[in-house]
Amino acid sequence: MFMPKETKFFDLFDRQIDNVVEGAKLFRKMITTPAITVDNIDKMHAIEHNGDEVNHRIIDKLNESFITPFDREDILDLSNSTDNIIDGIYMIAKRYSLYKLLTPGEYSHKFAAVIEDSVLALQKVVHGLRNNKKSKEVMEQCVEINRLENMGDILRDEAISKLLNDEKDPIVVIKKKEMYESCENVTDLCEHVANIVESILVKNN
Amino acid sequence: MFMPKETKFFDLFDRQIDNVVEGAKLFRKMITTPAITVDNIDKMHAIEHNGDEVNHRIIDKLNESFITPFDREDILDLSNSTDNIIDGIYMIAKRYSLYKLLTPGEYSHKFAAVIEDSVLALQKVVHGLRNNKKSKEVMEQCVEINRLENMGDILRDEAISKLLNDEKDPIVVIKKKEMYESCENVTDLCEHVANIVESILVKNN
Amino acid sequence: MFMPKETKFFDLFDRQIDNVVEGAKLFRKMITTPAITVDNIDKMHAIEHNGDEVNHRIIDKLNESFITPFDREDILDLSNSTDNIIDGIYMIAKRYSLYKLLTPGEYSHKFAAVIEDSVLALQKVVHGLRNNKKSKEVMEQCVEINRLENMGDILRDEAISKLLNDEKDPIVVIKKKEMYESCENVTDLCEHVANIVESILVKNN
Repeated sequence: MFMPKETKFFDLFDRQIDNVVEGAKLFRKMITTPAITVDNIDKMHAIEHNGDEVNHRIIDKLNESFITPFDREDILDLSNSTDNIIDGIYMIAKRYSLYKLLTPGEYSHKFAAVIEDSVLALQKVVHGLRNNKKSKEVMEQCVEINRLENMGDILRDEAISKLLNDEKDPIVVIKKKEMYESCENVTDLCEHVANIVESILVKNN
Repeated sequence: MFMPKETKFFDLFDRQIDNVVEGAKLFRKMITTPAITVDNIDKMHAIEHNGDEVNHRIIDKLNESFITPFDREDILDLSNSTDNIIDGIYMIAKRYSLYKLLTPGEYSHKFAAVIEDSVLALQKVVHGLRNNKKSKEVMEQCVEINRLENMGDILRDEAISKLLNDEKDPIVVIKKKEMYESCENVTDLCEHVANIVESILVKNN
Repeated sequence: MFMPKETKFFDLFDRQIDNVVEGAKLFRKMITTPAITVDNIDKMHAIEHNGDEVNHRIIDKLNESFITPFDREDILDLSNSTDNIIDGIYMIAKRYSLYKLLTPGEYSHKFAAVIEDSVLALQKVVHGLRNNKKSKEVMEQCVEINRLENMGDILRDEAISKLLNDEKDPIVVIKKKEMYESCENVTDLCEHVANIVESILVKNN
């Protein structure tokens, strides 16, 4: 009887994370092609806006549901925190354009790959929520997300040290430093969502 | 029987957010007049200190109360997070002085207005906590706070892009960039408090 | 019957905070001697890695325990947030090296002392969790951590204002500004853990 409603929540979480995956893939394409164009920024904006829609639908569903598959505040936290990932990716994509960094270098390429990998691992984690039996695979993907977050830290340190020690133009330093820090932050946001799912599984096991 | 205690919590939350409103109004005055004076910094410090007092009173009340109007940890979270807003506003006001940015420009004016608007909407949200029937208006003000947070993002991007592309002095860039980022952060803090109230309403409906 | 398991959690929390204390002491030594050497960075990395191990053991224990001394999500939050402190200290130590800031100045010395003091106060708070009767001392140490966090804010403002107004090389400004901000952030992380413990005590009193 309650299953349809529960299923609906999982469908919405799936749509939300699938949308983040679409954003991460477009981001990587924009950075590596490179293709930081008005057209792609618009596409990314549409993806970000789609994320907002799903987030609001989850909150609306929460308000009208008596039975939820897990704690109401965890649903809210999971939904808002997943939304933060696509907000972050959109914000970075836009700033590459605003700051006129139109041919991103090697470190940006590496970050775009780490972000895509992390979001793909997170997709498996979120899809796994629906089926508690999968929780071993979920835990493995959480470890992978943690590894990618560590790699993000290392990449950030390497990229910024090189920048600070080699680049002569301080304005370029300021711009690129922010890009590297923001990219690293996206891997933190992915880890945060993985932690929320981990916490939900710990409580409901 | 328990009402007086419950009312006391709502009174304290009202005092806390009213104090933030006073800070946001003074901040706007300091930025737009401009009047970044020792006297006004002292006034702002008194407001920030008043916020600390109310925050401690809420925590003390929590420790001595058996019955609370909603979950103990939500009261703690709401109180600490509201306190973060006035801490943030005070910190920014002080830095305009410390960094010798005594005649803030157009973007600072706009940020001061967005912050004041967001805090005023949040005041309605927090006042609404007392009366669950008002929850529709609360939800509308939450949407408004979300809109202002988005406007803060856009303002930040516009202000910083212009700064990075036009300003020649890198030290000025560093100073003003931090001011814009900190202002934008205050709108995030307002949205965070609105989310906490939303979550409390979702759980207690 | 359940006591051994409960004790085990407190043992792990003690080990975790004791490890953070070791890191804070090494950090202060590295900054003030100064001794930002490959050898000390390696030692700090070992401490950070030890922190990860304890954090994972706490999460594993959580997954296999039916009875926990307090809410499962609070255990997770406490453990992850304590881990963030040693991650932060390691990250800063490494960056002094990466950014070639090998003879840190007076403000760095002061920050290393404030961080050590805050971590030592936090050690008493976390040790106190085991024995609810001690909660008065715990509360006093929470106040002390709050005071040190305020001192961190003031130190940060003083250090960065001086830097922005006196230092001519913008790259040096960028490097040192980040160090001061990161140090201040460690005092925030300590306060966050103190808040979690406070919240646990409020809920379980």
